[in-house]
Amino acid sequence: MQKSMRWDHDTLYLLDQTALPHAERVLACRTAAEVAEAIRALQVRGAPAIGAAAAYGLVLGARQTRATDRQAFLRELARVAADLEATRPTAVNLRWALARMQQVPDRRPDASVAELREALLAEAEAIAGEDVRANHAIAKFGAALIRPEERILTYCNTGSLATVDYGTAFGIIRAAHDQGKRVRVIACETRPVLQGARLTAWEAQQAGIDVTLITDNAAGALMRRGLVDRVIVGADRVAANGDVANKIGTYTLAVLARAHEIPFIVAAPLSTVDLHTPDGTAIPIEERRPEEVTHLAGTRIAPEGVAVMNPAFDVTPHHLVTAIVTDVGVAAPPYTRSLRALAGAKVGG
Amino acid sequence: MQKSMRWDHDTLYLLDQTALPHAERVLACRTAAEVAEAIRALQVRGAPAIGAAAAYGLVLGARQTRATDRQAFLRELARVAADLEATRPTAVNLRWALARMQQVPDRRPDASVAELREALLAEAEAIAGEDVRANHAIAKFGAALIRPEERILTYCNTGSLATVDYGTAFGIIRAAHDQGKRVRVIACETRPVLQGARLTAWEAQQAGIDVTLITDNAAGALMRRGLVDRVIVGADRVAANGDVANKIGTYTLAVLARAHEIPFIVAAPLSTVDLHTPDGTAIPIEERRPEEVTHLAGTRIAPEGVAVMNPAFDVTPHHLVTAIVTDVGVAAPPYTRSLRALAGAKVGG
Repeated sequence: MQKSMRWDHDTLYLLDQTALPHAERVLACRTAAEVAEAIRALQVRGAPAIGAAAAYGLVLGARQTRATDRQAFLRELARVAADLEATRPTAVNLRWALARMQQVPDRRPDASVAELREALLAEAEAIAGEDVRANHAIAKFGAALIRPEERILTYCNTGSLATVDYGTAFGIIRAAHDQGKRVRVIACETRPVLQGARLTAWEAQQAGIDVTLITDNAAGALMRRGLVDRVIVGADRVAANGDVANKIGTYTLAVLARAHEIPFIVAAPLSTVDLHTPDGTAIPIEERRPEEVTHLAGTRIAPEGVAVMNPAFDVTPHHLVTAIVTDVGVAAPPYTRSLRALAGAKVGG
Repeated sequence: MQKSMRWDHDTLYLLDQTALPHAERVLACRTAAEVAEAIRALQVRGAPAIGAAAAYGLVLGARQTRATDRQAFLRELARVAADLEATRPTAVNLRWALARMQQVPDRRPDASVAELREALLAEAEAIAGEDVRANHAIAKFGAALIRPEERILTYCNTGSLATVDYGTAFGIIRAAHDQGKRVRVIACETRPVLQGARLTAWEAQQAGIDVTLITDNAAGALMRRGLVDRVIVGADRVAANGDVANKIGTYTLAVLARAHEIPFIVAAPLSTVDLHTPDGTAIPIEERRPEEVTHLAGTRIAPEGVAVMNPAFDVTPHHLVTAIVTDVGVAAPPYTRSLRALAGAKVGG
């Protein structure tokens, strides 16, 4: 199993991303609580992937409940959705997917509990399917920007593993590669959880794409030496004004890219664009546990008792973003206008 | 033993910095080859520390040789010095200390081999003693710049461990703390070898200085949130024009500091200033083995076979450096003039 998730016979199978690249371990989640824990523990991660996983988690929660009357069922559904949503605050796809799932009963006011359970599964499958199609669309729009032989620096993991399949930023790289553009990838390891070293390097190898791994702090030196033609990253939430919340360290790459006049591209489906968040200051930033920094693979790498700050994300202000590639087209500054136009086009179409 | 090195009865004792902070393991080096290997393996590291360690290494080499006539002895000495110098190319203190040691016989044209051995030991002890005094002088000049309650971001390790004792950049922090300025330190972990997490966090704890550990890629986000008042780093080589070679990632911090209008201070003794190197382009940058990036504490953290770039240092151009604090005073731009003036003052004084 090389996809991030698979639904089969009332079970959500997740490829355990904390075990990669050493082992391809599959988790079988049969309850909403198991899905919530997998999201919290980063066994499934990446904004689009956790959106879809949470949708399936809600399907599992809907099947667990013994409620037989509609009102009790809906109360239980809301409780499970709240538990799933509380796992990670920054990525908006989680909230978006759960809100979309909870609209299903509104559209079926006369449906029985059994019918609602089926409708919820259908909606989760729609979310998952749409994510794959969105990624292919992002890849198509993004790959058109890439010139042959480009050396593309990317961050964290935005490939198949971060999504239901294919990838956002990495999807663009994948598509450019498939078009024969001979792109080369520079993967930043992405401390503290090393999604770049463990996942992106692995996905690039699997796809036959030339990849070089660096520590995050080498990105500036490589840019100064003229070794980076473009930066492409994903997003966990894009605010209405184009401010981008993404993995901690993204902002540093954006500042460096600007200092070296290198295009800085964000790739995200519209499900990651949150028009209800006016700007980056309104995006909650998850602070994760210190052990992610002080320990690595069970080994302590810092002295006992040291204080740690471990914000999981940062916000890149829109003025450092060259373009935002979505599944309905490429947004250019000013983003307040372009993102709203793209969102309207999607609703319209 | 909490000092980086100690000479006692024909043996150079080194505190093994690869074992810290978990274990305080002491290496006993009785041959030049053992010292060279300790430098290569980063068991002793930090530009001033490896300069002094190499000087003692040459003392050991001078004692090992069976040469009885002066010419054979000098040939052997040159061979050992070349071996020691080849361990690490970037830090100029290594070359500086070995050149200084090799000038000892020139000043004693009539000395016997036995007398030269003693004179070499005296010179190594002079180098070590001067380094400690230089650090205290740097600390005094640097601490005068620090305001009470400053939050100082630092990088890699520049404390007692990186020097013979006390420290350069960390010496400034230590002196400001001792002056009651209640400074707080933000220590970047410093991938790939984690000198910040393992050594600086530990030294700050030992000294009772408030310290918070972050991943390197969080520095930009903290600056943007207004949590950093000053950046102070060390140097492995300062070129005549003020370009600074230092641990990979330093350049990124300098770009970030400039973007946030935060002072970026370099602390280094004059032994680190290389007036023979006109600018940063002439500084050789050591590329270290991929395993530093792909493995951590013996655990593989990246897929098999992935290509790696692992430059150990980068060059920060002088225009991003607010001031260079040396043991004879603070150099301000333009550095071509100020560094030469300080070097002249030292020779004159």
